Amino acid sequence: MSVVVERGPRTLEHPLPPGMRDLLPEEAAGRRDLARSVLERFALHGYRLVTPPAFELAAVLERGLKGDTTTLDDVIRFIEPESGEVAVLRPDVTPQIARIVATRLHDHPPPFRLAYEGTVLRRRASRAKKHRQIPQVGVELCGVAGAEGDLELLRLTFDVLRHGAGLERFTIDLSDAGIVRELLADLPSAQSLALSSALARKDEPALTELSAAVPGGDRIRALARLHGGRAAILEAIVLLDGTRAEAPARRLLALFDAASAIGLGPWLSVDPGEVRGLAYYTGTTFSVYAEGPGEPIGGGGRYDDLLARYGAPLPAVGLALDLDALAWALRVEQPRSGATSGVVVVGAHDDPRLAALRAVGIPAVAIDDAARAHAYARAWGFALVCEREQSADDVTRVLRGTP
Amino acid sequence: MSVVVERGPRTLEHPLPPGMRDLLPEEAAGRRDLARSVLERFALHGYRLVTPPAFELAAVLERGLKGDTTTLDDVIRFIEPESGEVAVLRPDVTPQIARIVATRLHDHPPPFRLAYEGTVLRRRASRAKKHRQIPQVGVELCGVAGAEGDLELLRLTFDVLRHGAGLERFTIDLSDAGIVRELLADLPSAQSLALSSALARKDEPALTELSAAVPGGDRIRALARLHGGRAAILEAIVLLDGTRAEAPARRLLALFDAASAIGLGPWLSVDPGEVRGLAYYTGTTFSVYAEGPGEPIGGGGRYDDLLARYGAPLPAVGLALDLDALAWALRVEQPRSGATSGVVVVGAHDDPRLAALRAVGIPAVAIDDAARAHAYARAWGFALVCEREQSADDVTRVLRGTP
Repeated sequence: MSVVVERGPRTLEHPLPPGMRDLLPEEAAGRRDLARSVLERFALHGYRLVTPPAFELAAVLERGLKGDTTTLDDVIRFIEPESGEVAVLRPDVTPQIARIVATRLHDHPPPFRLAYEGTVLRRRASRAKKHRQIPQVGVELCGVAGAEGDLELLRLTFDVLRHGAGLERFTIDLSDAGIVRELLADLPSAQSLALSSALARKDEPALTELSAAVPGGDRIRALARLHGGRAAILEAIVLLDGTRAEAPARRLLALFDAASAIGLGPWLSVDPGEVRGLAYYTGTTFSVYAEGPGEPIGGGGRYDDLLARYGAPLPAVGLALDLDALAWALRVEQPRSGATSGVVVVGAHDDPRLAALRAVGIPAVAIDDAARAHAYARAWGFALVCEREQSADDVTRVLRGTP
Repeated sequence: MSVVVERGPRTLEHPLPPGMRDLLPEEAAGRRDLARSVLERFALHGYRLVTPPAFELAAVLERGLKGDTTTLDDVIRFIEPESGEVAVLRPDVTPQIARIVATRLHDHPPPFRLAYEGTVLRRRASRAKKHRQIPQVGVELCGVAGAEGDLELLRLTFDVLRHGAGLERFTIDLSDAGIVRELLADLPSAQSLALSSALARKDEPALTELSAAVPGGDRIRALARLHGGRAAILEAIVLLDGTRAEAPARRLLALFDAASAIGLGPWLSVDPGEVRGLAYYTGTTFSVYAEGPGEPIGGGGRYDDLLARYGAPLPAVGLALDLDALAWALRVEQPRSGATSGVVVVGAHDDPRLAALRAVGIPAVAIDDAARAHAYARAWGFALVCEREQSADDVTRVLRGTP
C-alpha cells in the first residue's frame, strides 16, 4: 500500500529578498556540473582550492576595498552578535584570498595559485541597481609580476572557458587601469572620481560635460571612443603621446602582442578607456563577453598593491567568472537538451531492481503504479520508466545504447 | 627570466568573525570531494538538487521556525537595503525547501525528493555557544507519510554514509518527538519548555529539580535515562503504559523493527527521551554519531506540519549531514594520507610538457629552477617533479604506476 499523499492547494506567497533566487533541479544540476568543470580545469593548471567564509568583519574586508566608494556604499552590513563588531556579506572574494595568503599561507613558497568557488553580493551596475547574488568561481595568482603573470591568467581564462566550460565564442576585452588613472592623476579628486565613474558607466553626455571643464578633456573623450583590435591601442598611444598615460598604453600593446603570439589573438579586443569596477586594479584589466547575458561573463586584472594592505606585499593578478552569466552564454550556444537522468521503476519501494540500477550508477526511484510512474518521470526529468516486466539489465542496455 | 617575487614580512593580523574559518587547500579539496560523493549518492536515490539563497526575509524563513525560540533567539538578522525588510542568515535549510516545494514546484507530482548543499549559521549548542558556520548537505522527502517515508530516509542515511562517504562505524540514534511532547502536553507552557530544554541539554540536575514539581515527573526522569537498543524502547513502553506518550513509543518500536528487517539493526540505537533541537519535528527523529567530533555528524526527522505553513500541507521527513563533523569522523577512521596531485615541471612557463600533462588530466605548473621546483612541490602538495631531462610520458608512467 502506498501512502503517498497528494499536495494540497497553495494558499500563500513567500517572496525572496530582491535579487535573490532559487535554482530548481535542472538549473541547479547544470550549475553544479559547470562549477565542477571549471574548477577541475583550474586544478589542471595547478591552482589549489581555498574556501573563505561568506562574511567577514567589515574592518578586515574593507581594508581590501579601501578607496572603492561605489562598492563600499553598496555592501550589506550587520552586527555580528558575538563580537558586537560590524560584519559584511562579501561583495568580492579577492580581498579574502589576499588575507588568506598573508595570514594563513605565509609558510608556503610563492607563487600562490589559489582557486575558489563562492557567492558574492553586489549591486547590479546597470539598470535597476538591485543587489544580485553572483555565484563565482575564480583564481588568484599572487607572486608573479607583470606580463608573465598577466599572460598566465589570459591563457588560463581562455583555456577554462574554451575547454573547461566548453564555450566557443567569447571575447577577452583588454585594458590597463594605468591609462585612465594616469590621465586623471593631476585632477582634483572630486573631478577625477566623477570622470572615472562616467567612463565606467560609458555615460557619453556626462563625459562630454565633465571633460569640457578639465585640461586634456578632449583626450579623455577621444580615449572613451577607442575600441577594437591592435589598431585601437596604436591610436591610443598616438593620442597619449608624451603624457604619463603613454607608458601603460605601451604596456597594453606589449601584452596584446604577447597574447597574440601564444594564439589568443582571435579572442582578444581592446578598450583602452575602460574602467573596471574595482578600484584595486593597478595594471592590466580584462572583461570577458559572450552572446546572451547583458553583463560580462567574467573579468579580472592585476592588483599589485592589495596584498600589501594585509601585510604580504606581492604583485598579483586574478580572474572571476560569473557562473550565472556563463551558464546563460552556454545556453545561447547550445540550446538546452532537456537532459534527463535515471529511471523510475514500476514497483514497491524495496524492489530489488532499485539496488541493481544504483549499483551500476543509475539513479532510481520506485512508484507502484505505471501511470503515475510515467507522469513522475516526465515531471522530474527521469530518462526512462522500468515497466513491471522489465529487468534492470533491460533498461541499463536502453540507457547506455548497448544491444 | 623569472619575475617571481619573494613574499615580504607579515605585519598585521586580520581576524575572522567568531566561529568562521577558512578552508586551506588540502581541507578545501577534501571537503569538495566529500560533498560531491554524498550528493552523487543522493542523486542515485532519485534526489534532485535545488539551491536556495543563503539568506531570506525573516518573515518568510521564521514562518518555518515558529515556536522554536532557541533557534529564533540566535539567528543573525540584518536590514536588506533594497526592501528595508529584515533578512536572516539561514540557521536551517529545511524551511527554504518547504518554501520551494510550496511556491516553485507545485506543478510537480509528489513525492518531492530534493537535495541541497549549503552553509547554515547556528550557535553551537554545547560549550561556548559561539556561532558556527556549518557546511551541510541534506535531503527532504515531501509527500510520503509515516513509516514508509521514515524507512526510506533511514535507508538513505545508511547508504550515503556507508557507500557515499565511506564511513564504516556510526550509529543512527532513533527517537520520536511525540514521546516527550505528549508527556509534557498537559503542563503549563513555561514548565513544558523548561523541561524540554533540560531534556535537550541532558541536564540531570535541572531535570531532577523541574520534574519534582510536576505530575508524572518520575516518568520524565526515568525516560531521560533510557538509552540503548530495542530493550530500551520496550522499557519506555512499560513506563509510558496508559499515557498518550505510549502510542509514539510503540511507533518507535515498529520503526526500529522495520529498519532492523532491512538490515540496519547493527547501526541503530534508541534514545526515547531525546529532544532534537528543531521544534518542527512531529514524529521520528534521529541523530547520527561517529567517533571523533563531539557533535552528531547528522540528523533529521519527520515534520508533518511545516509545509502547511507555506501553503502545501504535505507530510515530510529530512536528513542533514554536517560536512565538518563527517570529515572529522572520516579522518578518525582513515588517518589522512597527505594526498598529493599533479606535477611541477622544471622548465619555462611555456614548456610543452605542461600542455602534454594537462591533456591527460594531470595538474601541472612550471618552475624554472630544480631546487625551487622541489620546495614548491613539497609545500603545495604536488606528487612529483618532472626534471629538466624527463618527458611528460616519463612522469605520467610514474604517477600511474605503469611500466
